[in-house]
Amino acid sequence: MPELRRDPVVGRWVIVAPERADRPHALVRMPAQRDDPAECPFCPGHEAMTPPELLVHRENGGARNGPGWTLRVVPNRFPALRTEERMVRAGQGLYDVMGGVGAHEVIIETPEHARGLGQQTPEEVERVLRAAQERMLDLSRDVRLRSALFFKNEGPASGATLSHPHSQIVALPLIAAELQNELAGARTHFAEKERCIFCDIVAQEARERSRLVLETDGFIVLSPWAARGPFELLILPREHRSVFEQSTASEVRGLAEALRLSVRKLDLALDKPAYNFYLHTLPLREAPSDWYHWHVELRPVLALAAGFEWGSGFFVNPTPPEEAAAFLRQTEA
Amino acid sequence: MPELRRDPVVGRWVIVAPERADRPHALVRMPAQRDDPAECPFCPGHEAMTPPELLVHRENGGARNGPGWTLRVVPNRFPALRTEERMVRAGQGLYDVMGGVGAHEVIIETPEHARGLGQQTPEEVERVLRAAQERMLDLSRDVRLRSALFFKNEGPASGATLSHPHSQIVALPLIAAELQNELAGARTHFAEKERCIFCDIVAQEARERSRLVLETDGFIVLSPWAARGPFELLILPREHRSVFEQSTASEVRGLAEALRLSVRKLDLALDKPAYNFYLHTLPLREAPSDWYHWHVELRPVLALAAGFEWGSGFFVNPTPPEEAAAFLRQTEA
Repeated sequence: MPELRRDPVVGRWVIVAPERADRPHALVRMPAQRDDPAECPFCPGHEAMTPPELLVHRENGGARNGPGWTLRVVPNRFPALRTEERMVRAGQGLYDVMGGVGAHEVIIETPEHARGLGQQTPEEVERVLRAAQERMLDLSRDVRLRSALFFKNEGPASGATLSHPHSQIVALPLIAAELQNELAGARTHFAEKERCIFCDIVAQEARERSRLVLETDGFIVLSPWAARGPFELLILPREHRSVFEQSTASEVRGLAEALRLSVRKLDLALDKPAYNFYLHTLPLREAPSDWYHWHVELRPVLALAAGFEWGSGFFVNPTPPEEAAAFLRQTEA
Repeated sequence: MPELRRDPVVGRWVIVAPERADRPHALVRMPAQRDDPAECPFCPGHEAMTPPELLVHRENGGARNGPGWTLRVVPNRFPALRTEERMVRAGQGLYDVMGGVGAHEVIIETPEHARGLGQQTPEEVERVLRAAQERMLDLSRDVRLRSALFFKNEGPASGATLSHPHSQIVALPLIAAELQNELAGARTHFAEKERCIFCDIVAQEARERSRLVLETDGFIVLSPWAARGPFELLILPREHRSVFEQSTASEVRGLAEALRLSVRKLDLALDKPAYNFYLHTLPLREAPSDWYHWHVELRPVLALAAGFEWGSGFFVNPTPPEEAAAFLRQTEA
């Protein structure tokens, strides 16, 4: 029986339509990438194929921009935005344009070409998140940049073009639209109720338990009420926290654990699906707020957005999040 | 040199980053569908594989729900929404839900399994659009339904699960979010300037010509200023028209010509890419307005939305729309 569910933060409606799960060929299948480590720009020995490193871990020594590292952050070779652009803004009749000022960085998570996040140790995942935190703190010093998005594309259907494990940071001269929508929804909720809407979600989900996937000391993982697609997950700090960059070492470790377990559960339950995740946190340099709550959204790519989704802005999800959560709770990661 | 462009109607920013066009493997490749006409639910003789027809063209006779048709409209076998649902609305703590009331119909465009829109005659395309118009008029009688989206998915990367040429209509008990955004932007523009923003776009594009793809008597096709991806197209009636359902026969014929030529140009220029299109028009039953202007958005699927797009709501387009338009102008369709 189909139903329409509203996302409580951004107001987006999702059609939960279990009947559509019976459609033939409804899952995305894309050929695995066969990129050769011998030509991989992220493999050790190929450091000259990337721009010079911005941050590096060399517990075992080794020269700058040479092998021996365990994690590197480099500018994207094909950047969407660049810090060197001028901050021009102009109108052209009806239209508005601004210079593509920003940053686009790649976190090369490990020297090992085929060591996906689900295979990494807790310490390795933690190192990736610490690198993201450090780079966001550094980028926040550039006052032209207003928001930063840390994200990962894994697998060909996720939009990833290289298979070597990496995640990315894009810093923008604007507040990203999705973040803007969340900020607006969370502000409205707080104005009415003097409560953080994400804290309310944590409380309701911890009480109802039907959409809960896992709980750790510091984090809660759930399949959200209005999940846009099957097995979409939301990872939240249990306590109210609004600025990811100000996380303590133990909070970063907690996120690493929750994220790693979530990816491992998806890998086991769905046979290593392609996925995207991204982190939503307050705009750069904003002081901690009572009303926003940072979080990670993790979305396995099991269906493609089609004309209906693009044209309506709504989503059709054939798997109720309660079913996805129940399945993932039983999956031992 | 990357730049950020703002969509004048919905305010969405797009990063136009031509450098990213040089990325290796950046184009989506998905295996062609090999669905067998012998098992195709849309092929003649298989009428029993679909629910009974809602509308049919039988210029040459033939029994109801049997072969002999040239076009059929049937309910989707795996509907996202159904007219039989009850119009319940409920709250569950923080969350809101309503019954999945709506309609989900399929227009089977032709009895020929492999006769894509680009291969159809102008009369065939016109018949598809007339069927969409007729079904939307019929659906608008159900006062529970507030907006309808006519759309098409062509090719595996578009989200299509069947290759037999078909398009779809989904009618919703809500105004779709993307339409809501357009209505809000267009209303604001009209409130300030007493002009339709889409008419302003038509005027500016006809004057500047750099993003123009083709012009017919009644329609203009352009690659929009803030195109979300390479070769995205926007098809607009040249004169102000706000309600697609009220189009005259010659207007529907004009759209068929513009749409068919656009698809043929994409087929030639990009070797039959997967694509989505959808039609945005006023909500059902609304009286014609001065401030909104119906149109079709046509998007070849050349890249997948990835973590950045999902997380930010922004898009990165490696092909400036001026380049795409220049290329398509030279493509003889």
